[in-house]
Amino acid sequence: MRVVTLAGGVGGAKLVDGLAHCLSAEDLCVIVNIGDDFEHLGLKICPDLDTVCYTLAGLANPETGWGREGETWRCLENLERLGGSTWFRLGDSDLATHLERTRLLKEGASLSQVTERFCKMLGVGVKVLPASNDLTPTWVKTDIGVLPFQEYFVQRQCQPVVRGFHFENVENAIPAPGVVDAIREAELVLIAPSNPWVSIDSILCIAGIREAIRGKVTIAVSPIISGQAVRGPAAKMYSEMGIQPSALAVAQHYAGLLSGLVIDLVDEAQEADIYQLGIKVLVTDTWMRSVNERNQLAKKVLDFGKRWLNEVEEGK
Amino acid sequence: MRVVTLAGGVGGAKLVDGLAHCLSAEDLCVIVNIGDDFEHLGLKICPDLDTVCYTLAGLANPETGWGREGETWRCLENLERLGGSTWFRLGDSDLATHLERTRLLKEGASLSQVTERFCKMLGVGVKVLPASNDLTPTWVKTDIGVLPFQEYFVQRQCQPVVRGFHFENVENAIPAPGVVDAIREAELVLIAPSNPWVSIDSILCIAGIREAIRGKVTIAVSPIISGQAVRGPAAKMYSEMGIQPSALAVAQHYAGLLSGLVIDLVDEAQEADIYQLGIKVLVTDTWMRSVNERNQLAKKVLDFGKRWLNEVEEGK
Repeated sequence: MRVVTLAGGVGGAKLVDGLAHCLSAEDLCVIVNIGDDFEHLGLKICPDLDTVCYTLAGLANPETGWGREGETWRCLENLERLGGSTWFRLGDSDLATHLERTRLLKEGASLSQVTERFCKMLGVGVKVLPASNDLTPTWVKTDIGVLPFQEYFVQRQCQPVVRGFHFENVENAIPAPGVVDAIREAELVLIAPSNPWVSIDSILCIAGIREAIRGKVTIAVSPIISGQAVRGPAAKMYSEMGIQPSALAVAQHYAGLLSGLVIDLVDEAQEADIYQLGIKVLVTDTWMRSVNERNQLAKKVLDFGKRWLNEVEEGK
Repeated sequence: MRVVTLAGGVGGAKLVDGLAHCLSAEDLCVIVNIGDDFEHLGLKICPDLDTVCYTLAGLANPETGWGREGETWRCLENLERLGGSTWFRLGDSDLATHLERTRLLKEGASLSQVTERFCKMLGVGVKVLPASNDLTPTWVKTDIGVLPFQEYFVQRQCQPVVRGFHFENVENAIPAPGVVDAIREAELVLIAPSNPWVSIDSILCIAGIREAIRGKVTIAVSPIISGQAVRGPAAKMYSEMGIQPSALAVAQHYAGLLSGLVIDLVDEAQEADIYQLGIKVLVTDTWMRSVNERNQLAKKVLDFGKRWLNEVEEGK
């Protein structure tokens, strides 16, 4: 079964890692959010691409879910000593990725090409594609003004109250090579348990991607469990946008796109309401605390997709 | 006594460190070679400035004389893993200097301003000035072609046979702010035991510097001991340029500029020949194997200068 997954950072990377355990590498393609990408200290930094690649390469920090395992901070400590900027924590190992990516981009390589090269060097067989090679930086509209995403997310630790989002230049961006083809050729499209507002909408807004997904069997995994995000500001964003954070809210968020939604056992009571939206529901344990739980969730999501595909097949 | 020292990397940094031990900080100014500077991985790297500053800050690696003490190489190891360039060894702590300098230069700061800021942050009281804020990259003419300095020096480990040197753009360069004033105000000008060809000539070639030095009491310390350089390719360069490497050759190299030359005990036999050039000679132990030896040599050089200054004074 050929599967395409739309993913942001940590939650997305974990599900993708589980999927990679269940599928052969050539059957899995990940389309990764680039809205978080930014330039810092002259370096091009792509947090979600790196989290996905590090996780698939077995290099990610298992405690944080992002960054490198066994990371050291010598450069950052010395930057601080020199009066440099340290709010964005660049580890010594991680720095190599940003230095080499920046160099390759300056030489004229596209972000897709750089990502493909890094995956090859790190032994990642799964196809990892940036959503676009164009810049579509996310801006967060807040009570204290419009902030670049990383300033909101890291520097201000998601404290400002969110009023909305803007994906700059998204109207001019085109999907990276292979993105639309991968979706067209996929039997199953998955939306990882990533932040719907800033990790997935930023992908879906790029011309042609939402259209390519429409009509596909598309299953999302809710990033909201019991009204909370496992990590990050998704639930806080829902509340500040005037929406009660819940699996149902996620279903409504993706309305018109979803065939099915995977929700946590603790949210079972919402199953009927989600079903009312014309979305099938799989209720299961969705919290990925261990590698084993990633693999288990991935298997259940794929089985859920398979059942759906069989029904579609039988319905023909 | 106000002292200005022209210096390159390791040997220069060691003498300057000894001088800083003997003089109050406001009486010492170091003018540092910028011909070795280059851009690597998008970062502006100034090896001699960094060696001088790290040494004065007590941060230099005492074994190599360059780089940082207790340096780690995580970034470099990961660069290698990604297929990046690793011939120029950038340590994790050292990287902070290059990242922050590159950022400040891009923001419009001059190399002098960046250097002043770094010295302040690192607690270096001695005035450290780049010879120029203009780019004057050294090219080495060799039997295999004209090579950028770092390609000759690091990548090819000084193996090509040298035919000459070219300081690109030096005809358009002007001394950095403060350089000519510091020389004019100095009572004593020292030329550190740095490579005459590529560390000192590259400073002297910048318009106004040689002229400002002329007429000053100027003392060099020979970087050649017993026909060999303590470190680096200076002796090899003399041989390949058709000159027997010796303290005498150094005296002839700086002819017209020197009041005195400090040579090693093992080269005592050359004293008379050097004296014949109109250059006074101090014969002493010039090999700086320890911090104590740096301080001792610095004291002897300063005393040698003082005696000369007294003679000049008496001669008036």
